[in-house]
Amino acid sequence: MGRHSAQQNKEPQTETPLERLSSALESDMEAVNALILRHMDSPVEMIPKVAAYLIAAGGKRIRPLLTLAGTTIYGGDITRAQALAACVEFIHTATLLHDDVVDESTERRGRKTANLVFGNQASVLVGDFLFSRAFQLMTADGSLDILRILSGASAVIAQGEVMQLAATGNPDISLDNYLEIIKAKTAALFAAACEIAPVIAGASSEQAEAMAEYGLNLGIAFQIADDALDYAADREKLGKKTGDDFREGKITAPVIFALQNADDEERTFWYRVLKDHIQTEEDLETARTLFARHNALEQSLDLARAYGEKARLALAEAPDHPLRPLLDELVTFTVERRH
Amino acid sequence: MGRHSAQQNKEPQTETPLERLSSALESDMEAVNALILRHMDSPVEMIPKVAAYLIAAGGKRIRPLLTLAGTTIYGGDITRAQALAACVEFIHTATLLHDDVVDESTERRGRKTANLVFGNQASVLVGDFLFSRAFQLMTADGSLDILRILSGASAVIAQGEVMQLAATGNPDISLDNYLEIIKAKTAALFAAACEIAPVIAGASSEQAEAMAEYGLNLGIAFQIADDALDYAADREKLGKKTGDDFREGKITAPVIFALQNADDEERTFWYRVLKDHIQTEEDLETARTLFARHNALEQSLDLARAYGEKARLALAEAPDHPLRPLLDELVTFTVERRH
Repeated sequence: MGRHSAQQNKEPQTETPLERLSSALESDMEAVNALILRHMDSPVEMIPKVAAYLIAAGGKRIRPLLTLAGTTIYGGDITRAQALAACVEFIHTATLLHDDVVDESTERRGRKTANLVFGNQASVLVGDFLFSRAFQLMTADGSLDILRILSGASAVIAQGEVMQLAATGNPDISLDNYLEIIKAKTAALFAAACEIAPVIAGASSEQAEAMAEYGLNLGIAFQIADDALDYAADREKLGKKTGDDFREGKITAPVIFALQNADDEERTFWYRVLKDHIQTEEDLETARTLFARHNALEQSLDLARAYGEKARLALAEAPDHPLRPLLDELVTFTVERRH
Repeated sequence: MGRHSAQQNKEPQTETPLERLSSALESDMEAVNALILRHMDSPVEMIPKVAAYLIAAGGKRIRPLLTLAGTTIYGGDITRAQALAACVEFIHTATLLHDDVVDESTERRGRKTANLVFGNQASVLVGDFLFSRAFQLMTADGSLDILRILSGASAVIAQGEVMQLAATGNPDISLDNYLEIIKAKTAALFAAACEIAPVIAGASSEQAEAMAEYGLNLGIAFQIADDALDYAADREKLGKKTGDDFREGKITAPVIFALQNADDEERTFWYRVLKDHIQTEEDLETARTLFARHNALEQSLDLARAYGEKARLALAEAPDHPLRPLLDELVTFTVERRH
């Protein structure tokens, strides 16, 4: 505990809450990264090559950080937390590899997707490997409660991805459908990453539920914000690609809010670009104009803020600890970030 | 025990050993099928639809039968065996769904592949779902030993598939490379399906090793025979498709044996069709002619027989039980079957 508060105090306040969390847990995250590298290794060369391509490209590592922070707050065995945080990142990486095949994506984390570089086949199979490896590591940890939480989350993620696939190109899906999808495809793993922390520490089931609730709502807020950011024009100035969801025909919060108040002409536009999937160069700009007209991005962020508030309320149940305020600020950062 | 011997005696001897095994374990297999149907269900419609398409198409169910037969022989809890046999079949089905995406296959079990009917995306994601569901069921069973065996097998299968992908179109791979691949991609799950039976029964680790050895060698023999059958012309009379491996550029036992004694002209042929992947209508027939010239199919089956012999030796370690001779005959049937 002393270690974390000491590290935390020396960090300048200009860093984001996520960066401060990473700094506070720096040595633990280094251990997690070492475990990831060790366990993604295989005599089959292509496996560490594909895995390293995606894992080395960075990413925010937010899920393993949640497991580490939670375990520290609850005073659990940090060595177990490191191994299980690696499992969580493996499950996440496996879903990214499979997602990119499913979405036929071309860019992830600022570079070409693994499926584009190594082929769909390698992406599918290396995803399977990482997924299996995660279960081997969980089995080595030996907690059936944690196996139950993470195998349950994995099944829910797959269901969420299938729901999303079925909903793609269907502008008639409701806000509730959308929330159900992102709860499953994104928030379930956030929830699991948080829930296992009190379980590692042997805390009460109420404490485990509170952390799961924090993670679930943080995950929902994270995904809504992400879906709004996918349309944010100012993001392009940072060299980020926007409009992926639009091109893939994914129906996300901004579209749903824009459709709620759309006139006939606007409705025809959305059906053409998302359902019939007939898009021209200017359509993304038109979408942005319609969002501005109906305040759709701001409505989306308000929804994200409401889930963020739920997350912060649930977090208040956790023990008082220097890392707790960082998890609290992480919620706001997740919603208000601009990239 | 009485139940099995009674059922066994009334079966006519004209049935294959696999059919007799299925009959002897009929009520248990019905329970497994019911569990499969129940646990592949999901509120997300597409999941049971895709899963049912493949699972309902039949297949030999050889892996769950091995778990059931082994558990019966060792006197283990058959209810646990039924649930774990369903897990084994889920893992197998998940790998089939992903394989067909990887191989760009068009036919499986006598009908169009799931990826062709429902799309690659659905196949990848439903495979992920079944895989996760298998781990949920194993966790519910609660044996860490079994979780270790099946998560280990899953990781090995994925590695085998990646090895196969890397070896595709490379006629220079050795017989050892080939055996390493099929051991991983096929035999590992046969071995695991068998190994968990004595574990369910709480038998010694020597007994578990003997059953794993039986399954591993049976699986190797099975795959070699399968690879030979893929070129068997008389199989076409049964309405089965042949030449899939040839068209996909997979280097299997018959090709390796044919290449061992190939002259320059034959070598040029194999490199053109498998490495450069330039194939004409007549090439499959030419391949068969070269196999006949070098006795390649018979050499392959001899190799399968040798592994079959190892399997039968390992099986002799298992307790005496009316089902044991059926597992013994299954080995010969696996190698000598003509479809």
